[in-house]
Amino acid sequence: MIGRLNHVGVAVPSIEAAKATYRDLYGVSDADITETKDMPTQGVRVAFVNVPNSQIELIEPLGETSPIIKFLEKNPQGGQHHVCFEVADIHVAKAEMAARGATVLGEPRIGAHGTLVIFVHPKNSNGVLIELMETPKGH
Amino acid sequence: MIGRLNHVGVAVPSIEAAKATYRDLYGVSDADITETKDMPTQGVRVAFVNVPNSQIELIEPLGETSPIIKFLEKNPQGGQHHVCFEVADIHVAKAEMAARGATVLGEPRIGAHGTLVIFVHPKNSNGVLIELMETPKGH
Repeated sequence: MIGRLNHVGVAVPSIEAAKATYRDLYGVSDADITETKDMPTQGVRVAFVNVPNSQIELIEPLGETSPIIKFLEKNPQGGQHHVCFEVADIHVAKAEMAARGATVLGEPRIGAHGTLVIFVHPKNSNGVLIELMETPKGH
Repeated sequence: MIGRLNHVGVAVPSIEAAKATYRDLYGVSDADITETKDMPTQGVRVAFVNVPNSQIELIEPLGETSPIIKFLEKNPQGGQHHVCFEVADIHVAKAEMAARGATVLGEPRIGAHGTLVIFVHPKNSNGVLIELMETPKGH
């Protein structure tokens, strides 16, 4: 049921510093690092680092109630936060996950790629927070 | 300089239980879950879960001095352990990483895909342990 590994989410204290890491240390070109986008309803700012087959999503807290503040308190340098797989239909995926006994966190909402996403609790997936994201149409 | 996101490494207390998660909860077919391979010189057992564009590497401790025992003490359910990107030449990559001030952990050694790998310290990459892996020839 899961498809492509769309991205790995990395929580960071500073997106600008993290962009510099991928550009200066790992040689990613500026063209493959997106502009930073504020997502106030989700309490985060995000930017993507493109590699040939996938992406790294850099995530910085936005606002004092950001859901990643607690993660960064535990991991002050930052760290791997979630793994996102594509699915064909988010509502089907949510229903199947629930039927299989998983804890789906909240209702489907628009993610950073403009399509619907859900999150599955890490306790269901060997400690890994999994995001499921509806594949963008036309992709 | 970095190429494809070859895999995301996930440390788990039990590879068999983790395989069941990807098979039964996420619908990955048995054909896309590899046999478990012991890597005694590295102190781990590994198996891969194939998705269309990448892989999840499941890693279980092997032996009492396994390098992932400490990680699992901190994260008893398991968790994301590293991200692996492909590079064209591991020796060039190692020299460039060192020249750019990164801390490369150890000498190039044969990884789970049979090609040379190095690891770059998480402090250099916003808390993320990065594996660089020479792209398998013919790929």
